[in-house]
Amino acid sequence: MAKVLITTVPFGDKNRLPIELLEAADIEYEINPLGRKLNEEDLIQMISDFDVLIAGTEDVTDAVMAKASKLKLISRVGIGLDNVDLLAAERRGIRVSYTPDAPAPAVAELTIGLMLALLRSVHVSNTQMHRGEWQRHFGRRIPEVTIGVIGTGRIGGRVLRRLQAFGSPRILVNDIQPDKNIAPELKLEWVGKEEIYRHADLVSLHVPLTKQTKNMISREELLMMKQDAMIINTSRGGIINETDLAEVLINGHLGGAAIDVFNQEPYSGDLAKIDRCLLTSHMGSMSIDCRARMEIEATEEAVRFLNNQKLLGMVPQEEYDVQRQGL
Amino acid sequence: MAKVLITTVPFGDKNRLPIELLEAADIEYEINPLGRKLNEEDLIQMISDFDVLIAGTEDVTDAVMAKASKLKLISRVGIGLDNVDLLAAERRGIRVSYTPDAPAPAVAELTIGLMLALLRSVHVSNTQMHRGEWQRHFGRRIPEVTIGVIGTGRIGGRVLRRLQAFGSPRILVNDIQPDKNIAPELKLEWVGKEEIYRHADLVSLHVPLTKQTKNMISREELLMMKQDAMIINTSRGGIINETDLAEVLINGHLGGAAIDVFNQEPYSGDLAKIDRCLLTSHMGSMSIDCRARMEIEATEEAVRFLNNQKLLGMVPQEEYDVQRQGL
Repeated sequence: MAKVLITTVPFGDKNRLPIELLEAADIEYEINPLGRKLNEEDLIQMISDFDVLIAGTEDVTDAVMAKASKLKLISRVGIGLDNVDLLAAERRGIRVSYTPDAPAPAVAELTIGLMLALLRSVHVSNTQMHRGEWQRHFGRRIPEVTIGVIGTGRIGGRVLRRLQAFGSPRILVNDIQPDKNIAPELKLEWVGKEEIYRHADLVSLHVPLTKQTKNMISREELLMMKQDAMIINTSRGGIINETDLAEVLINGHLGGAAIDVFNQEPYSGDLAKIDRCLLTSHMGSMSIDCRARMEIEATEEAVRFLNNQKLLGMVPQEEYDVQRQGL
Repeated sequence: MAKVLITTVPFGDKNRLPIELLEAADIEYEINPLGRKLNEEDLIQMISDFDVLIAGTEDVTDAVMAKASKLKLISRVGIGLDNVDLLAAERRGIRVSYTPDAPAPAVAELTIGLMLALLRSVHVSNTQMHRGEWQRHFGRRIPEVTIGVIGTGRIGGRVLRRLQAFGSPRILVNDIQPDKNIAPELKLEWVGKEEIYRHADLVSLHVPLTKQTKNMISREELLMMKQDAMIINTSRGGIINETDLAEVLINGHLGGAAIDVFNQEPYSGDLAKIDRCLLTSHMGSMSIDCRARMEIEATEEAVRFLNNQKLLGMVPQEEYDVQRQGL
């Protein structure tokens, strides 16, 4: 009998439907017994007996797959594929699917929330008030600033469209494949990344983690930014160099930062010492509806696979090509 | 020579134009030398020599006016009039002007930011991350919840219009003078306040502080709200009973609160002990552009008055009637 390992946690927590789908299809499953993000060694210990992996953001490496002699499908709950060695999977005949649309509305909405918090120093004021300090901070409204968005795909595009309601900020955008129809009602200026670093008051990143984007924003880029500029990362840890960001902030450059994703999660590091660095615990996709949709879609794909039905969420060839160019 | 006392601070800080307007008009002025919100006694000590008061939210009482034998105009920087004894001013022949439109965009934008922060537990996660704790919180997106807006005037109306970009939440609204054309593109349900308390997941208040709204939301109303509901007050302290709110939150009711305004400012009290209570320091109008507009408009009114020109920002008779009914 086919067995499914679910490593992403929480799973089926706010909405039991994904578990009911497995049970209705008479599929045996096991949910990550450690209740936390697994490391490679955990997964190596756990994987050998399973046919399908419903995966989170833990590393699914060639070494993991080497121990997974029965594994035939990796069904990713979410959009990023930086944690899955697609080339190893291809070599071993393991198929990979994902749910790229499901998390986008939740990530976009959180991003707008982080923009508004940064622009008005809400996080700094909240920290001070809870310490018993009263200090009124001046802020800026969205239409007063220049916003730079790097990556205008599923999530970046939604961020842009939600900005509309706030009036007309100047918006600089960058993408490796510019889509000039992304938000026809907005006046977007397509520019190079360096122009965004130099001219934006608020930079938000919506790119995947690849060899090209790893450490894309390091000390040099951070120092290009305006003295009081702000930066948001809700995409993947590692795209901004965390050590450099902490150093630059501690030295007094930049007005603030909002970071939801980290090199290593759970995060502990110097950013937690900086009041004007707003930190959240990889919660971009964690709205009840989007999380449920991700889990349901990934589970449905597993059920389809085990029932020999046509798969609907297969990772496209371009994603393999990105890794072939070397992550 | 006419003299102007400016009690609101900061003043002319990010934009010097209001000060330049006074200097260009050869008007002698003094800015609050204490650099903090004045109490009645401070103002009594300070006021006697001045013809015009450019006022913040400090109490301008009958006792203050009794010591202000030269005072002919109170020009309020902002919209709320709860701090000015309009009837005493009327009796003493002191005119009162205000700037009701200037702060609205900044307050509305902060309110949306607080909604997004509450719905996604951004403030809780930030506090935990800065303590070295990693806990991922589920949240809800705006289109998933029922939003209740009490007060649909200049600020509440703008909040409603900005919600549009986030999809279609169910929106319950209440106002003593319902304006059915406030946001024709939104499907608003006009209901009584109690229905909002009972059915909304997120309640936001945009009413003035009057006798009718003082303690409008006390223990009884808070306990009517859903177990995981959230409440935002960016209007005036005292509309929600602070003591009751702290008690109810400490006892585990409500999912969170965001409070920008307090009975007594600077605030210190039990709300500062509660992680899920997001606190800011009366920063609703504190965007650089709106604050500048408020200061400029209030200063222009003072200049017009001292040059015997027609005044443009006089407080309308309705506001006097509200106080006549007893604040």
